[in-house]
Amino acid sequence: PQLSLSVRDSYGSKFTPLVVVELASDTKEEAIAWLLDRIRDKQQNGGAELLVEQLSPGVVASEKENPNMFLVGASWQRLLSGAEDVGLFKEFSDGSMRGFTCATKNSFKDFKGEGDDFLSMAECQYIIKHELDTLRAKDETHVPGYTHAKLYPGKSIVRRLQSKGILVQIFPLHEKEELKRLSFSWYKKIKLSLQPLDDIRHYYGEGLALYFGFLEYFTFALVPMALIGVPYYLFDWEDYDKYVVFAAFNLVWCTVILEVWKRNSASLAYGWGTLSRKKAFEEPRPGFHGVLGFNPVTGREEPLYPNAKRQLRIYLVSLPFVLLCLYLSLYVMMIYFQMEGWALSIHDENPTFWTDILLFIPSIIYAVVIEVMNLIYRYAAEFLTEWENHRLESSYQNHLVLKVLVFNFVNCFASLFYIAFVMQDMMLLRQSLATLLITSQILNQFMEAFLPYWLQRRRNKKMIRRVQKRKLLEDKELPLANQVRLEADMSTYLGTFDDYLELFLLFGYVSLFSCVYPLAAVLVVLNNITEVYSDAFKMCRVFKRPFSDPASNIGVWQLALEAMSVIAIVTNCALIGMSPQAKAYFPESDTQLILWIAAVEHGLLALKFILTFLIPDVPKHIQIKLSRLEFESLEALKKKAEVLQCICNFMVSNIAVTFHYAVS
Amino acid sequence: PQLSLSVRDSYGSKFTPLVVVELASDTKEEAIAWLLDRIRDKQQNGGAELLVEQLSPGVVASEKENPNMFLVGASWQRLLSGAEDVGLFKEFSDGSMRGFTCATKNSFKDFKGEGDDFLSMAECQYIIKHELDTLRAKDETHVPGYTHAKLYPGKSIVRRLQSKGILVQIFPLHEKEELKRLSFSWYKKIKLSLQPLDDIRHYYGEGLALYFGFLEYFTFALVPMALIGVPYYLFDWEDYDKYVVFAAFNLVWCTVILEVWKRNSASLAYGWGTLSRKKAFEEPRPGFHGVLGFNPVTGREEPLYPNAKRQLRIYLVSLPFVLLCLYLSLYVMMIYFQMEGWALSIHDENPTFWTDILLFIPSIIYAVVIEVMNLIYRYAAEFLTEWENHRLESSYQNHLVLKVLVFNFVNCFASLFYIAFVMQDMMLLRQSLATLLITSQILNQFMEAFLPYWLQRRRNKKMIRRVQKRKLLEDKELPLANQVRLEADMSTYLGTFDDYLELFLLFGYVSLFSCVYPLAAVLVVLNNITEVYSDAFKMCRVFKRPFSDPASNIGVWQLALEAMSVIAIVTNCALIGMSPQAKAYFPESDTQLILWIAAVEHGLLALKFILTFLIPDVPKHIQIKLSRLEFESLEALKKKAEVLQCICNFMVSNIAVTFHYAVS
Repeated sequence: PQLSLSVRDSYGSKFTPLVVVELASDTKEEAIAWLLDRIRDKQQNGGAELLVEQLSPGVVASEKENPNMFLVGASWQRLLSGAEDVGLFKEFSDGSMRGFTCATKNSFKDFKGEGDDFLSMAECQYIIKHELDTLRAKDETHVPGYTHAKLYPGKSIVRRLQSKGILVQIFPLHEKEELKRLSFSWYKKIKLSLQPLDDIRHYYGEGLALYFGFLEYFTFALVPMALIGVPYYLFDWEDYDKYVVFAAFNLVWCTVILEVWKRNSASLAYGWGTLSRKKAFEEPRPGFHGVLGFNPVTGREEPLYPNAKRQLRIYLVSLPFVLLCLYLSLYVMMIYFQMEGWALSIHDENPTFWTDILLFIPSIIYAVVIEVMNLIYRYAAEFLTEWENHRLESSYQNHLVLKVLVFNFVNCFASLFYIAFVMQDMMLLRQSLATLLITSQILNQFMEAFLPYWLQRRRNKKMIRRVQKRKLLEDKELPLANQVRLEADMSTYLGTFDDYLELFLLFGYVSLFSCVYPLAAVLVVLNNITEVYSDAFKMCRVFKRPFSDPASNIGVWQLALEAMSVIAIVTNCALIGMSPQAKAYFPESDTQLILWIAAVEHGLLALKFILTFLIPDVPKHIQIKLSRLEFESLEALKKKAEVLQCICNFMVSNIAVTFHYAVS
Repeated sequence: PQLSLSVRDSYGSKFTPLVVVELASDTKEEAIAWLLDRIRDKQQNGGAELLVEQLSPGVVASEKENPNMFLVGASWQRLLSGAEDVGLFKEFSDGSMRGFTCATKNSFKDFKGEGDDFLSMAECQYIIKHELDTLRAKDETHVPGYTHAKLYPGKSIVRRLQSKGILVQIFPLHEKEELKRLSFSWYKKIKLSLQPLDDIRHYYGEGLALYFGFLEYFTFALVPMALIGVPYYLFDWEDYDKYVVFAAFNLVWCTVILEVWKRNSASLAYGWGTLSRKKAFEEPRPGFHGVLGFNPVTGREEPLYPNAKRQLRIYLVSLPFVLLCLYLSLYVMMIYFQMEGWALSIHDENPTFWTDILLFIPSIIYAVVIEVMNLIYRYAAEFLTEWENHRLESSYQNHLVLKVLVFNFVNCFASLFYIAFVMQDMMLLRQSLATLLITSQILNQFMEAFLPYWLQRRRNKKMIRRVQKRKLLEDKELPLANQVRLEADMSTYLGTFDDYLELFLLFGYVSLFSCVYPLAAVLVVLNNITEVYSDAFKMCRVFKRPFSDPASNIGVWQLALEAMSVIAIVTNCALIGMSPQAKAYFPESDTQLILWIAAVEHGLLALKFILTFLIPDVPKHIQIKLSRLEFESLEALKKKAEVLQCICNFMVSNIAVTFHYAVS
């Protein structure tokens, strides 16, 4: 990437700043000197061999400004060898995706000259983050100047500094030009077109690009449903019992789209080179703490936390807490139904225009309360999962996702299930569904994008006003130092968790109950379109640039959506069973009807599992490419062994010759 | 292994014969000479570098005797390097299981001296089979003397010879002494004890040992059920409606035992070194044929068969055929019910002792017919799957297993389901289940072990009589040549397929309906005990020794059993719902009862899936061992890279020195 900005490091060599490391403003000098030295040190000596320079004070140096901000970059050679370390896959000259190695660099498609344009900036930043993360303690016993910040040989220094609060944050820098170009092709253009997924991936990495890819896919998948829904809504509005066809369509739809997505996502991930990339050895989380012991895997001394203790915390504290929250959520639901009844009784007593509106009030209040409860619970779940003290980030994420999913599912859908199957009031179900959907959408868009943007804008304006007050700048272009400080102040994007959670709930609304309220699909399509714009906007303008995440699929969310689609099959079968048409087939006996519905439902579930099993997750042509690569690497390994043999033979004879010369 | 027998190859060196290769008796001389040459040729020249010698004519050389039988063996060095090729895992000095390499051979636990006692004979035979299978054509276009037997560069010669009928069979030799010892500790001892699984694995390999391990595990798992079943049977014989408790127990049981088995099997496989062993690159099946084309994976020219054509054969021929067979099976079932009704009407007219017996006759006939139909269908399925022309053995096996499982399931269980849920006649269900179970057991044991043994015995006796007639031998010990010919005449063990199928059906009888007939578990336990003995007997006495199969689990059968356990949950819930006790809870409404049962069933199914998901398939302590190995190999890789760097540096300096000498 061509960057207009560059700085000189202390040895005078110019480098492009890629990543910013911010230390606490009161960090001791000796600790800073030691850290910079370790980052700059040669790899042979256990350093990271990166370039690092302190950020010069801003144009408006106030006393609040943190002086301990450092710009990190690297030479192109270092970045290329780092790309090999992290196992980056790039396009090979034959069009396949292969793991990059410095030895074969010239056979890669876009490798030209020195290779200074070969890696995207996001990749460079990912490499630097990886190199910083794997900068390991040698024989130091603690961080200089901080006797309580103990270090263990072979453990990550950066993680330790983070958990001790010495390191405040690490974040990658935005590229102004690139970002402007991306935002134009993404959300600023007038013409409706597909998202520039490859550009998004280029700038933000695979994890985020997969999220936007899924969002787009999900929207397109909803279109047929929306198209069926509109005439339904227009012509059969009051005829709730015509929903059997729609429910049957729903059944098929929710199974098929998930299977097709799996294959799509594999295609995307193959094209981006993450499909066959290996997971790196996971470092412990920064927040993990424990008592010193021997790691059973590595045999090294490091903090350990007994699994039994963690299990106790999970089953004796977290589980009861979650159950309590679920109870609370159901209790609130009951209050909602009481309010609903109360509003209805007022309306029945004396129906006016105002009581008509009053009928919607309880649903709206309930929808807001649901959102607030979700938000509060989210923080509680994070706190609890943090307290469970998981060693690895993946295990932490799994426990957090499980907690949040269960609660959100119950919180959002319990009232709908209650209305549908206990009260059997399809009219109320439709009204409740519509209110929930619309209210939560409005709230979400507001909370997610516009509120943070507004806060950010205020902060920016203050900064710019301050700069202008000093009359140092005529144009609006800020110098590097101020730019960096501005970005450091931006909110941090916390990952795709909340965005996927929202999609998960929308998928639930559509797949579970859209047969009762066919307009749901239309609403979700509209929401998704605005979601694309607001999400794109928040990524480009509101948040710090996130580090790219080499994801090969949407991970645990695929599983969550599959689970939802199973529930959807059961729900839709039950809704069909409750329809007057189904009842008309078995006029004399409910039992017969239920048995039939149960039989059909079991058949459908079985069919779903068989389909999931039969449809390959990776499309055939990509499978062939993958096995070709595997075959070639096997062949290469054989050849390598032969070459090594040759070298050895040559060496032995060479030594013999040397001896011969030496002796004779 | 110390073998009393050995032969000398044409160069006069003595070797232990391990494997027998039998060519057709009319094979042309030039083809034989070429094949032997390729087998004996050095590995550098693309040969297998094995020792091979023609078997001398038997003591009683008759004209029927095939002269083209060859004994194959190898030097210990060759076997050790072959062990590295096949990726054999052996116990390391630190107790962990590691992939054997010649470079680290001295660090393995049982490696002493030259290593001539390191590999078991089964391992040696497996290695030789692998080396023969991977003996590849070079630039020959066809087998010498057979212009129609085309060869393609890089393709297996042996597979080609097999598919052209030139190579009749390859089989490993028994070890008389070892076998005698094994059979004593296995089935000839009086005292009841566990099977010598490690010895079985030592002699027959992991695949067969896992089968016997599962058989033993399954038997033990049935014991609690049998213990509950006996008092049930003794005291509540006529009280069919007491089966709710039993059905509930069944529900839990069939889920738990499969989960526990997965962990057991992982422990066994880890101890045997097959858990983390990689699957070898699969060669095409011997029977596979196609039109010459370019393999999309390897890019080499070889016979290909279009997938679309195979799919057509599967969906247009195999599938309709299977459906037809299923229809036929149901038709036969209906005939059985008519016979049943006829027998009952005769009994009701004039009940005597003979009509009492007559009542059982239809069930017995039906059981025999079921077995016969299973057998015929088995052959048809094999023929069809062969005709589908699958390229890989694994794909062939999957299609065969699927076909056979579906038919066997319907054929065996359809009548029981019909009686239970359509006729709702628990009395008849019990009688039918008992008859089916007992009859099929008796038939199976007879067909599997005693019939082949009896045929084998007759053949052996003839042979010995002929030998004795010539008065060449006083004692009964046969010389090598006769021994080999005797073994070549033995039946071939066709793999564990039929044995697992039988266990699958037994598992079905117990898990589906044992609540109606609690004695089923007892019968199955008894059957399993005799099964161990008869299977052990047939392996040791009736069949040729099979090649060992480095399996790490019971493969597709685990899946089949899981599917059966899901069906068992549904069935048991339905049986509970039909019980008078359950009906007593909801005296006024069947609908309520059914809804409750359905809800409970869905909850149980969900629980089962969550449990399957939560319980790790590999026990914790083995996971730790595996990740330690992975960690160590990563570390070793790093060190290796450093060492290579050193060597290169050294070489460069060395060359410089040489040049220095040469120039000066």
